Amino acid sequence: MSKLIDYAEVLKHKSKDSCWVILYGNVWDVTDFLPEHPGGSSIILKLAGKDATEEYDPIHPPGTLEENLPESARIGPVDPKSLPEPVKAATNVGPAPDTERELPLAALLNLDEIEAAATKKLSKKGWAYYYSAGDDLFSKEFNNTVYRQILLRPRVFVDCEKCDLSTTFLGYKLDLPVFVSPAAMARLAHPDGEWGIAQACNSFGTIQMISNNASMTPEQIVKDAGSNQVFGWQLYVQTDRKKSEDMLARINKLDAIKFICLTLDAPVPGKREHDERGKYEVEDASQAIKDAGGAELKGGGGIGQSLFFGTDPTLTWTKTLPWLKKHTNKSIILKGLQCHEDAYLASQYAPQVRGIILSNHGGRALDTAPPAIHTLLEIRKYCPEVLKRLDVVVDGGVKRGTDVVKALALGAKAVGIGRAALFGLGAGGIAGVERVLEILRDETATATRLLGAARVTDLGPIHVNTRAVERDIYDGPGDLPAASGGLWTKSKL
Amino acid sequence: MSKLIDYAEVLKHKSKDSCWVILYGNVWDVTDFLPEHPGGSSIILKLAGKDATEEYDPIHPPGTLEENLPESARIGPVDPKSLPEPVKAATNVGPAPDTERELPLAALLNLDEIEAAATKKLSKKGWAYYYSAGDDLFSKEFNNTVYRQILLRPRVFVDCEKCDLSTTFLGYKLDLPVFVSPAAMARLAHPDGEWGIAQACNSFGTIQMISNNASMTPEQIVKDAGSNQVFGWQLYVQTDRKKSEDMLARINKLDAIKFICLTLDAPVPGKREHDERGKYEVEDASQAIKDAGGAELKGGGGIGQSLFFGTDPTLTWTKTLPWLKKHTNKSIILKGLQCHEDAYLASQYAPQVRGIILSNHGGRALDTAPPAIHTLLEIRKYCPEVLKRLDVVVDGGVKRGTDVVKALALGAKAVGIGRAALFGLGAGGIAGVERVLEILRDETATATRLLGAARVTDLGPIHVNTRAVERDIYDGPGDLPAASGGLWTKSKL
Amino acid sequence: MSKLIDYAEVLKHKSKDSCWVILYGNVWDVTDFLPEHPGGSSIILKLAGKDATEEYDPIHPPGTLEENLPESARIGPVDPKSLPEPVKAATNVGPAPDTERELPLAALLNLDEIEAAATKKLSKKGWAYYYSAGDDLFSKEFNNTVYRQILLRPRVFVDCEKCDLSTTFLGYKLDLPVFVSPAAMARLAHPDGEWGIAQACNSFGTIQMISNNASMTPEQIVKDAGSNQVFGWQLYVQTDRKKSEDMLARINKLDAIKFICLTLDAPVPGKREHDERGKYEVEDASQAIKDAGGAELKGGGGIGQSLFFGTDPTLTWTKTLPWLKKHTNKSIILKGLQCHEDAYLASQYAPQVRGIILSNHGGRALDTAPPAIHTLLEIRKYCPEVLKRLDVVVDGGVKRGTDVVKALALGAKAVGIGRAALFGLGAGGIAGVERVLEILRDETATATRLLGAARVTDLGPIHVNTRAVERDIYDGPGDLPAASGGLWTKSKL
Amino acid sequence: MSKLIDYAEVLKHKSKDSCWVILYGNVWDVTDFLPEHPGGSSIILKLAGKDATEEYDPIHPPGTLEENLPESARIGPVDPKSLPEPVKAATNVGPAPDTERELPLAALLNLDEIEAAATKKLSKKGWAYYYSAGDDLFSKEFNNTVYRQILLRPRVFVDCEKCDLSTTFLGYKLDLPVFVSPAAMARLAHPDGEWGIAQACNSFGTIQMISNNASMTPEQIVKDAGSNQVFGWQLYVQTDRKKSEDMLARINKLDAIKFICLTLDAPVPGKREHDERGKYEVEDASQAIKDAGGAELKGGGGIGQSLFFGTDPTLTWTKTLPWLKKHTNKSIILKGLQCHEDAYLASQYAPQVRGIILSNHGGRALDTAPPAIHTLLEIRKYCPEVLKRLDVVVDGGVKRGTDVVKALALGAKAVGIGRAALFGLGAGGIAGVERVLEILRDETATATRLLGAARVTDLGPIHVNTRAVERDIYDGPGDLPAASGGLWTKSKL
Repeated sequence: MSKLIDYAEVLKHKSKDSCWVILYGNVWDVTDFLPEHPGGSSIILKLAGKDATEEYDPIHPPGTLEENLPESARIGPVDPKSLPEPVKAATNVGPAPDTERELPLAALLNLDEIEAAATKKLSKKGWAYYYSAGDDLFSKEFNNTVYRQILLRPRVFVDCEKCDLSTTFLGYKLDLPVFVSPAAMARLAHPDGEWGIAQACNSFGTIQMISNNASMTPEQIVKDAGSNQVFGWQLYVQTDRKKSEDMLARINKLDAIKFICLTLDAPVPGKREHDERGKYEVEDASQAIKDAGGAELKGGGGIGQSLFFGTDPTLTWTKTLPWLKKHTNKSIILKGLQCHEDAYLASQYAPQVRGIILSNHGGRALDTAPPAIHTLLEIRKYCPEVLKRLDVVVDGGVKRGTDVVKALALGAKAVGIGRAALFGLGAGGIAGVERVLEILRDETATATRLLGAARVTDLGPIHVNTRAVERDIYDGPGDLPAASGGLWTKSKL
Repeated sequence: MSKLIDYAEVLKHKSKDSCWVILYGNVWDVTDFLPEHPGGSSIILKLAGKDATEEYDPIHPPGTLEENLPESARIGPVDPKSLPEPVKAATNVGPAPDTERELPLAALLNLDEIEAAATKKLSKKGWAYYYSAGDDLFSKEFNNTVYRQILLRPRVFVDCEKCDLSTTFLGYKLDLPVFVSPAAMARLAHPDGEWGIAQACNSFGTIQMISNNASMTPEQIVKDAGSNQVFGWQLYVQTDRKKSEDMLARINKLDAIKFICLTLDAPVPGKREHDERGKYEVEDASQAIKDAGGAELKGGGGIGQSLFFGTDPTLTWTKTLPWLKKHTNKSIILKGLQCHEDAYLASQYAPQVRGIILSNHGGRALDTAPPAIHTLLEIRKYCPEVLKRLDVVVDGGVKRGTDVVKALALGAKAVGIGRAALFGLGAGGIAGVERVLEILRDETATATRLLGAARVTDLGPIHVNTRAVERDIYDGPGDLPAASGGLWTKSKL
Repeated sequence: MSKLIDYAEVLKHKSKDSCWVILYGNVWDVTDFLPEHPGGSSIILKLAGKDATEEYDPIHPPGTLEENLPESARIGPVDPKSLPEPVKAATNVGPAPDTERELPLAALLNLDEIEAAATKKLSKKGWAYYYSAGDDLFSKEFNNTVYRQILLRPRVFVDCEKCDLSTTFLGYKLDLPVFVSPAAMARLAHPDGEWGIAQACNSFGTIQMISNNASMTPEQIVKDAGSNQVFGWQLYVQTDRKKSEDMLARINKLDAIKFICLTLDAPVPGKREHDERGKYEVEDASQAIKDAGGAELKGGGGIGQSLFFGTDPTLTWTKTLPWLKKHTNKSIILKGLQCHEDAYLASQYAPQVRGIILSNHGGRALDTAPPAIHTLLEIRKYCPEVLKRLDVVVDGGVKRGTDVVKALALGAKAVGIGRAALFGLGAGGIAGVERVLEILRDETATATRLLGAARVTDLGPIHVNTRAVERDIYDGPGDLPAASGGLWTKSKL
Repeated sequence: MSKLIDYAEVLKHKSKDSCWVILYGNVWDVTDFLPEHPGGSSIILKLAGKDATEEYDPIHPPGTLEENLPESARIGPVDPKSLPEPVKAATNVGPAPDTERELPLAALLNLDEIEAAATKKLSKKGWAYYYSAGDDLFSKEFNNTVYRQILLRPRVFVDCEKCDLSTTFLGYKLDLPVFVSPAAMARLAHPDGEWGIAQACNSFGTIQMISNNASMTPEQIVKDAGSNQVFGWQLYVQTDRKKSEDMLARINKLDAIKFICLTLDAPVPGKREHDERGKYEVEDASQAIKDAGGAELKGGGGIGQSLFFGTDPTLTWTKTLPWLKKHTNKSIILKGLQCHEDAYLASQYAPQVRGIILSNHGGRALDTAPPAIHTLLEIRKYCPEVLKRLDVVVDGGVKRGTDVVKALALGAKAVGIGRAALFGLGAGGIAGVERVLEILRDETATATRLLGAARVTDLGPIHVNTRAVERDIYDGPGDLPAASGGLWTKSKL
């Protein structure tokens, strides 16, 4: 019988360079086994120099130890008298209570947890601006829940060892099929602002579209762009055309910005009550304004409202596109299409128009406007050729990798996130945005593999069951036979 | 280096006539810029004479200041030692707590907030009378949620700078497509009563229909009518015809009342438990009545019940319309049609009948009766020609501008509000009703623009996706082939 | 100016024989007006001898007083100095708080309030027995909510002054289209038991079906039957046929019992956990049984379970009906049919079988079994001739008069209530059952009138929109073309 | 008049050998009646030696006593003066409060109560591992609720005295149509582990499929197998094929293991946040790992994650099946098919493949993957011949006997449970698993009888109404006519 080993000795071996654990009364040297452990080395290191039996036993069948460790790894029996009294957890049962301490970013497991973490850190005004959406937030909510209505159809016996998440947009490569949609006022979340988002996009090899209402200048945002990094720049055309033309001139000089994203879904601002409410929350605001001789406060008008000042609501297909073409050589995409008729019209302007973003502005413009997935299904139903003539992407409501693969299976080249990037920024600056992209990348990879697809570009309608959504898709105005579907639509345009 | 400016000096310039703010350590005179500020002057005046950096910084990209203000506006650096200690908000994060203080009307952003404000001010009896509806309030609730089931279909690249909200009803112009439906007992909400509603309608250029059970006389209500102001008058025909005839004689003399609204959806009162319950809430009511020798209290019978006393439940198409025609020369409309068959019948009586109100009495009559939108879709399905022969309007459940545009897109000339006007009255008298109309006007304008329509009369079925509602629309009795739809309906009538 | 009247004098006139009230400072003698008051005399008597201005003013337009009362009714001005100080209600706003005091039966406005009142009074065991249903109570709940899925279609301009609620079943007249289904163990609710229910049924002119498991003998229950009162008697056939035959012999002697209701929906008991749970709620029950040498308690078996002891699960169409016919001359109906195939089969046995009750046993047998309304719609879809060959009635889930008219519009001759009668009994004995029948009668009358029908027998499929339910109705097994519908069903039988 | 009997004397007779009770003042000797009592003898024994009147009276009609007991059983009147004072229950009304004491297994009436009991006993880690599922737990929840969407169609007048629950799988008999699906790490629940589950399966005559990641060796699990007991063994193929081949060699030697269940629905692990979260819940885990020189904790990776280490994601129809066949002579089934295309493909490999388990891995792999019932309905719709060529079973979400009969009616040979067995183990070891099987057996028998079927193998599509589910079943990709359904699917494969 081997000599008993004192627990004090065991305690000395609690590093990855020399790692001992006690199992069933024996001391084992598991240093060499660390890199091979199926569960990763951390799980062992956590117990280095300790009795690991209670954690080990219920999840390893007998014999596992002997199978995986050579006899030489057994140091010998521990001296039971040298062991400390076990400390019993007082309440080790049931679901975990909500914890109040701030979790590390790695412990935020999904986008809802990122948002929750950011909500604790943001100013009330910043939170309200990001969180807000039109009227009753119906479209904002529906943007997300419509993805839950779509079921996935996993295939088996498909080799999915490698999982290629890369896609392209306007010919540019994205390492993952998720980009950052234009979203204003990033510095309300964090001083890193839009520049910070750019750094995270560079790390993950994806595109950032810069908001027309960014809280930093385009020059600042792109100044540390990676060599292959791609940006788009969002344009709200100003009534004072000269202002827009000057801005385009500045943008034209920035090589990293590859395309202009003309935004159409908000010719006037939506009604965002969470944002507007802010005005009344400072108790003496009304009085201060009155004292200063200002007009009485009227309903309406938070941050969102002011950003729209000067935006031109008179744009048309025939006037605006030629004007824009005249002032830039960069590619042009249109953002905010919400019905197949407009998507079809856009496709008639290809290749002048290169792509479109199906979007209801994150639910921030017109409440009860359809989610992008509805518009995508409308296009599939009435004019699928649009998907060939234009690069079509969607945004709004994406919270899970399963949402990403659903949009892709239905023909989108990629999906955009808006609030998620801002909440990531609020939760942890650059690292927070990176964590958001990491979560979506990992979830998208997992979903792609479990669907039985080797690359995201293999995804197709066979991978999704959209029946619950199909029955809500626009079926033509009631006074025309629905059966004439796509045809009348086009003939009418 | 310029001379340091003492904060005491800055504090003197906090009016719109001389407005200084501190930004990044410099004092700026923004007086001349006030009218040009995209966000409106109030936002600046709120900060007049203060350090605005914290509010300004995160939402303005660098360079904004220099772009918009001449160098001459820079007064110079503030003396940091003269600045007061900053006061940090204790908890400046997360969503706002519900506030208990009474908000100004302008801070009530939507009709639910108006109702909440009124609920705090109304007597329990008044609240119960307004709030109540039939049985389980199913139809009351459905009147509203059915609008949520309809999705909007925004078009882009449409010039919507001007937004014309005007419409007509019976040839009379409404400045906005929202009128006030007949709703009884306005003085339960506010002493201004129905007269107060009239004043608000005049300000907003719309029609008020006076309830047969108004708490003021018609003469009082119309006495301050504007020169173009239009009223309707609601008629419940009394069993004692003489009473109705006398009343019509009085109405005939009032020029501002342009039409008679014969109400048909409540030949007997519905069961409104919130209202009826009032009777039992005074602890000693039963005893008092007993002491007085009265009969024991029976179930049933609040305010709603008593108002119906004397109403004639024997009306018919062939008896009642000729009688009414004999006693008035004013236009006649019918209120309370709830199926396409009756709408079709009404259209056979045109032009004797000029218009109809699709209504389930705000859900106050028969619970599980269909919302007006259902009836409108039934008409579109079975007998769309009704929409050409009659002016069709709807009421019930309208809470948002998006609800208004949906009804209009489906063929209604305008929509009526009932409780909303009363709750507006309860929340702030005339100004409260005006705030209700203002909210609906602004929301309707926003929705119209975001739909890509230049005027509400341009709205059509192409602007709405009604599939989720269509599948619930009546499909004929099961024992007849559904396909014979409209035809058998008409042949049967 | 008339002499001031002292308030002490007013106070003397607070009976229906001499009733004074103060309005706007004047004392009025309203004694003669009492019977004419539209709101009923109680509302005035409640205020007899008091200042009624605050209650009167907001709901009566100016002039109402003068129009309705002769000048002679004005006694004169009250002496303001003699009036008591007004007592202000502390919080007279918002919705009413839940009251704890026991309300009089007349103040219980609907069947949910009756159940709530009974729940406070019943023993835990009695409550559990009545409340319980199979498994997760899905069918129990659905029995009710399926009625909410059906919309009503009110017609206007129909003379509905008279409202005839009477119907017939097996040729017997019911004054209202609601009968009492067989429901066991009424004395768990109240000592009046099934006899008490009989008294209430007699008052309201309707049928009571006596449970096979009544807590009183049939002889006791019918002993005070009215001269035209009609009873049915429920039969669960016993494995020991002799017992059933003896019982039938007893029933045959009771003239008031007009028919036998053979129950088929519970050949074995369902799993009613609320009921079964009772067994374990007495802390020491297990111990007591053990001490007595009994077997250990097993899962299963509350009151419901024991009642089924001896019930024969081997009944068949061809064996059981001839046996029953041999032992009684009374009419026979079948209870518990849940699919159109069985309803069709039953119709093949007419006139031996006179009627059927579509029922899932109040959700107490098989959970997720269809509600009776589903079976009724199945019959309309596949074999509507059944409705002509048999008297079809339904039970389960009826809580509102609107539920009653829906079932009638779809072809049921009447609807049965079970728990509602028992909860009525629990809430107030005979008077409680009467209140239940009164509520349903009044609600049914209101619904019939508001639908624009003069009598319940005029109700038809044109009065209901069942689309939301139709799409859930059985469409044939997937392996046969649905289109062959009724035909294959019949050919297969 | 007989002599009064002292209560002290009654108290002596409180065993099953001599059992007296007091009823209406008389003492009765009910010893001989005990075995005949319809409610079972326990109910009487509970009251042995006591006054049973209060319990007896409301549920027995008068005369019951005299009918069932001979006069000789009446001992005589009790001496009222000898009776103890009655103790009144303080609050004997309303629903029962939740009790905190631990209930005996027999008092756990359904699978939710079993889970609740286990949750109180499990370690937080064990609970999280069992409870967890992919992403938002949508599929886990839907697995269960989809059964609620299916309605049952009970038939009447069917002799269901005997109820045969037995079925077969791969030719082996199961006494009830419920088996235990492979579920890992049973010793996290209870030291009896997978061996314990085996004992329970033996008692109930059903199959256990042993998880590839069992916490005991296969040899340990089957060591006490009954003579006819049947096991399956789950295989996750390892990238290191040698390991899998060695394992198969061990399995080949175990006669009780009759088939290999190749699992395909989790080529990579799903994202199970409840499980992953565990890692961060020990406050100092990160620090300990850091101190040991380990890498920083990354998102992802609970128990579930580590179990997948080494699993090969490159399996294909053509490579993997021949390899497997080479290494075992046992029958092969495939687990985790989730669309009809793969089920059809599997059927092309019959008889090499003998059966399939439709499964989404208990919702633990890909969230929003379809429940097995969807896949089963897809198979019925597109390629019903699969049900003839293969033994098809389902798992996931089964909580009720009604769920079991629904799956069977649609063509499944049996249904598997996973978590339920583990929670049973956690609630009470072997006895807990037995209680789970007992509940499901009894519920399945009740449901089968109430459906009017004499044996579960008689169940067919005529017993279920699946319309609410049918409309969500995959209808082919949008770009092909749905009508070509089954055909194109097969031609494409």
